[in-house]
Amino acid sequence: MTRPITDAIGFTFAPKPYRYDSRELILYALSVGAGQQPTADSDLRHTYEFHPDFQPLPTFAAIFPFTIMEQITAAPGLENVAPMMMLHGEQYLELKRPLPAAASLTNQARISQIYDKGKGALIIADISSRNESGEEIAFNQVSIYVRGAGNFGGDPGPTTRSLNLPPDRAPDAIVEEKSQPNQALLYRLSSGDHNPIHADPAIAGLIGFERPILHGLCTFGFAGRAVLQHFCPDNPGRFHTMQARFARHVFPGETIVTQMWQMSPTQIVFSSHVAERGETVLTNAVINLV
Amino acid sequence: MTRPITDAIGFTFAPKPYRYDSRELILYALSVGAGQQPTADSDLRHTYEFHPDFQPLPTFAAIFPFTIMEQITAAPGLENVAPMMMLHGEQYLELKRPLPAAASLTNQARISQIYDKGKGALIIADISSRNESGEEIAFNQVSIYVRGAGNFGGDPGPTTRSLNLPPDRAPDAIVEEKSQPNQALLYRLSSGDHNPIHADPAIAGLIGFERPILHGLCTFGFAGRAVLQHFCPDNPGRFHTMQARFARHVFPGETIVTQMWQMSPTQIVFSSHVAERGETVLTNAVINLV
Repeated sequence: MTRPITDAIGFTFAPKPYRYDSRELILYALSVGAGQQPTADSDLRHTYEFHPDFQPLPTFAAIFPFTIMEQITAAPGLENVAPMMMLHGEQYLELKRPLPAAASLTNQARISQIYDKGKGALIIADISSRNESGEEIAFNQVSIYVRGAGNFGGDPGPTTRSLNLPPDRAPDAIVEEKSQPNQALLYRLSSGDHNPIHADPAIAGLIGFERPILHGLCTFGFAGRAVLQHFCPDNPGRFHTMQARFARHVFPGETIVTQMWQMSPTQIVFSSHVAERGETVLTNAVINLV
Repeated sequence: MTRPITDAIGFTFAPKPYRYDSRELILYALSVGAGQQPTADSDLRHTYEFHPDFQPLPTFAAIFPFTIMEQITAAPGLENVAPMMMLHGEQYLELKRPLPAAASLTNQARISQIYDKGKGALIIADISSRNESGEEIAFNQVSIYVRGAGNFGGDPGPTTRSLNLPPDRAPDAIVEEKSQPNQALLYRLSSGDHNPIHADPAIAGLIGFERPILHGLCTFGFAGRAVLQHFCPDNPGRFHTMQARFARHVFPGETIVTQMWQMSPTQIVFSSHVAERGETVLTNAVINLV
């Protein structure tokens, strides 16, 4: 007999080590579009290890959960969840300390909740990343939508659709950036998220996509760069938290347009859409600066 | 007293291990432009590790010398050669066996000759790459031009300018492919060639370039892909040898146009130029198939 999916609530995964150095940081930055404007020194500090102000792009920390999430079927009740049935729903990232230029971390993940969304189930996972001294560097909360796994009579959970809504006025800034046709192939390498729906046309087709789709967190990285370049181009270290809902997919090669509204000196609400199809892809989205 | 540069002739470098796996192969393929045409299955076999015909792009083997070349100042007479004074002159690559999808190799390099080209010196290095059984997988011959190091009264050496000239007729095929503004930043990661002239605007400017230039071997990779996709799209394993002269630089973001002439069933002479400036960048170039 199959265990109910809710058995996974409270499950704590085995801690996983995660090391990175400047090569991984640069690969990540390039995989979210950095360096495409040749004169943008704000990108060069994330893509050239000998830059005098070399530092990680803060959204790099959003990939830490993936050393854990690839083990998700280790949780009781989730044994039969196929990677191609999982879609990234939302992500919240909080930097607790500045990201070092190289680090040896331990990621610790726990499934904190599973909601019944009708057609699918929504798994909420909390991931804490600590350095060798045990200090927390980053906290991520990831929600993963599992197609076809809903209707188990569970709690539908709160809605986040009224969070971080743009005000009723024109955006304070708009940044438009084209992704590349091979963007998802590159992002797979930098993130470790090898879900075949981002590379394999046959697998993508099985789920109803006309071709492989971009990772939601890759779009998240594009949007994060856009906000930082506009509001603190010389000090990306002001990044504190970022949250977004992955409303729709982006196809690699499409143009990501990020609209931003400054709500306070430290809070930027934003949304991103695809220029070619007009679809909104990131909603309920905010970056808080320090 | 400084030793003469010719003391380096015959110097054999310490053998260097070099390991790679599918992640490195994919990174390399993306760094020479693979995956930019979403429907090109011939690229997907080099960029997606679960492709049923996954295999290395043959020109990957052209990067094996770089574990050695970064040590070039270990050779007597070359102690004072600065990386920014070195330019890649020519490359010859021969695959002795099919490249495995993962390997642990040993690269052994020797300086076979140093020619006096007047304004500069031309260092010829032979690099042999062997697998754990001692079988030779690839042989590279690299020529490196060192600015300002000539006029030492040495042998000017042979000229290669009459080798592999295109016939006096229209090309049999032309492939045009745009590189990306961040192409050199990505190629640095895949190749290990961290020469700052490919990333640092200030260093590039010191040598008279208006901005950082693309690695010659990156253009070499673009051209290799173009030839293979046209002449053996379903069997890139037919690649046997490739040779080219790096006549001029490419700026990242420019369009590389490769013109090809089939000289025999197994020999393709080619040349590459930059569409935007009309400059010819690869000359005296050939690929031999098996």
